[in-house]
Amino acid sequence: MYSEMMYQYGSQRSVIREIFAYGQEKIRELGPDAVFDFSLGNPSIPAPDSVKEAVFDILEQESPIAVHGYTAAQGDLQVRQNLADSVNRRFQITVGPDNFYLTCGAAASLCCAIRALTNPGDEWIVFAPYFPEYKCFVMAAAGVVKEVPPRLPDFQVDLAKFEETISEKTKAVIINSPNNPSGAVYSKETVQEMTDILKKKEKEYGHPIFLIADEPYREIVYGDVEVPYLPEYYEDTIVCYSYSKSLSLPGERIGYILVPDQVTESEKIYSAVCGAGRSMGYVCAPSLFQRVIGKCVDDIGDIEAYKKNRDLLYGSLTDLGYECVKPDGAFYLFVKTLEPDANEFCRKAREKYNLLLVPSDSFGCSGYMRVSYCVAYDMIERALPLFEQLKKDYE
Amino acid sequence: MYSEMMYQYGSQRSVIREIFAYGQEKIRELGPDAVFDFSLGNPSIPAPDSVKEAVFDILEQESPIAVHGYTAAQGDLQVRQNLADSVNRRFQITVGPDNFYLTCGAAASLCCAIRALTNPGDEWIVFAPYFPEYKCFVMAAAGVVKEVPPRLPDFQVDLAKFEETISEKTKAVIINSPNNPSGAVYSKETVQEMTDILKKKEKEYGHPIFLIADEPYREIVYGDVEVPYLPEYYEDTIVCYSYSKSLSLPGERIGYILVPDQVTESEKIYSAVCGAGRSMGYVCAPSLFQRVIGKCVDDIGDIEAYKKNRDLLYGSLTDLGYECVKPDGAFYLFVKTLEPDANEFCRKAREKYNLLLVPSDSFGCSGYMRVSYCVAYDMIERALPLFEQLKKDYE
Repeated sequence: MYSEMMYQYGSQRSVIREIFAYGQEKIRELGPDAVFDFSLGNPSIPAPDSVKEAVFDILEQESPIAVHGYTAAQGDLQVRQNLADSVNRRFQITVGPDNFYLTCGAAASLCCAIRALTNPGDEWIVFAPYFPEYKCFVMAAAGVVKEVPPRLPDFQVDLAKFEETISEKTKAVIINSPNNPSGAVYSKETVQEMTDILKKKEKEYGHPIFLIADEPYREIVYGDVEVPYLPEYYEDTIVCYSYSKSLSLPGERIGYILVPDQVTESEKIYSAVCGAGRSMGYVCAPSLFQRVIGKCVDDIGDIEAYKKNRDLLYGSLTDLGYECVKPDGAFYLFVKTLEPDANEFCRKAREKYNLLLVPSDSFGCSGYMRVSYCVAYDMIERALPLFEQLKKDYE
Repeated sequence: MYSEMMYQYGSQRSVIREIFAYGQEKIRELGPDAVFDFSLGNPSIPAPDSVKEAVFDILEQESPIAVHGYTAAQGDLQVRQNLADSVNRRFQITVGPDNFYLTCGAAASLCCAIRALTNPGDEWIVFAPYFPEYKCFVMAAAGVVKEVPPRLPDFQVDLAKFEETISEKTKAVIINSPNNPSGAVYSKETVQEMTDILKKKEKEYGHPIFLIADEPYREIVYGDVEVPYLPEYYEDTIVCYSYSKSLSLPGERIGYILVPDQVTESEKIYSAVCGAGRSMGYVCAPSLFQRVIGKCVDDIGDIEAYKKNRDLLYGSLTDLGYECVKPDGAFYLFVKTLEPDANEFCRKAREKYNLLLVPSDSFGCSGYMRVSYCVAYDMIERALPLFEQLKKDYE
């Protein structure tokens, strides 16, 4: 009567959503100050003022028919030109507006790229820990997910395992750096070695293996950490970008896919991306926010607040004896749970202390919890005694 | 290397887009006044003032973190409550917020509904003339499209042919009324008889046959024409709605799917809709415009301008001897071409007079042209002598 696969996707709520629902109920019961929600990836800093100014300017100065009208399926030409100019300024690559396809955010970018490339049975390699929706997107396109475990303790890539995992059927590899949930930024060395392996394998199998750079957290890095730009290292790289995190606009659904000319058969791949968007009903990206990002292309929210949160939470948790790698980017800590079963550990934290933490299993790793620090500073302060109690419970 | 189907969808530009590109080139060459573009469905009346006021109010009064943050995948609860209240006020049906799933517009609504319901080989019935993308959406979900020809000359449903087309494999029927491209509104009698047939066939085959009410033009009707609300006639109706036309917001991508409780296994179908959205990367509908439609739920643009356009264009073309049914809704005339080959006729109109008209073949009918009248009134006035010349060319 309906598609069983879609029903499963719709009815099996993700762990994160279940925890969220638990938190909402507890808030109703006990009030907001009694619940410590470290489960979400919703930016806690506001969009920069330039976003609001851009919306007001556009609505005051331009015709509503133009502002709210259909754009080309690829996105407004001037906006794409602005994006190209920005990429050309910032990176060692030359792109033009026709390399960009504007999308409704990173998830849409990934789905369009995945459907554009996948034939049934094609393999997609992901690096654990990974964003759980990758599996859903690849399987819905009739592809197969192959996982590569992380190199511990630094959550860089286990290159030997990576090489073993590549096969004749490998269509593409998804990299998410800075990484959700580990906060790791893949280093230049990691990227260099990984792309060397890919080049070797492309030659060996005689067909391209695409690298999908899933980069919503590119701008969310701390100190002088550099995030290698993958198209500079590997020609068959397709970039999936979103403004959800850099401009704190996750609900507005705005991002892009970039298919540089250097990609094998780039024009055909770009057409297939457009076709994938069309086949899923993505007529165009939201038109007002296309214009907004065109005006705010190099802006970014005030991420100092995330750094302050990271320093407090990382410093305090490690002082308490929790094990965790210091994250260079994104806004998550990936902390070893104090018992091997992360689900059980997070359940106890939730039920005893109203600490909402995400167990790591759905990210493809066991024995960790994801602690989001895109939250209010004072909530972290108030939660620290609870983390301390929780630690003592295991001593 | 890529998906051939997606490449085909992306590279075979629709006829409408080709005509649009031709027009753009001619405008560059000859100036905007020399080109008469009747090819598009972009609303020509501005969004009502309440939309701009709503945007300003929301951005002035609410926190940007809340306004631009993720909403629930189904959409903001208060917005869905407002939509439910509006439907309950206007129609003989009772729905609640949990019957609504907010989407990125009508195309997204259709794709989610189609993927939620379709198993490979399932048949989808469409009534010619139909929106060409239906085929693309159904085929991408591994479904099969079955066409029913129109009853002429009034473009209601050929009920006998409809009944013949229904089979054991029929999963659903898509109705688009007011209709793009014919402008016809299916009458109460048509809807009554059609749904009687469906009820009979549901019993005969022992499984539900869903009716998808694709209703972006519901509010665009002239005079006292009534558009029957399909859930009042048939329980297994799923409504796909968009604010593209009623609020002149086609670029903003905002609409909904409504799965009333009366639908067979409605909760499971609703879950499958959510799962379909998830599998295609529709994280949530754009958050600012969710709130905007929540505030403007019963507003509508000033459609008097369309009526004025319709009356001028319909009156003049029929006076000139063109054959056309007077449209009751939407903003298109569906006019018999003066030679059987509509492509050839539209090519001549384009090349000789810069009249941009859409041949009917991609809508599943031959021998007609679609003339959009969501255009400037004075362009219609200036084009009438050219329509007259064109008519004389065939005498």
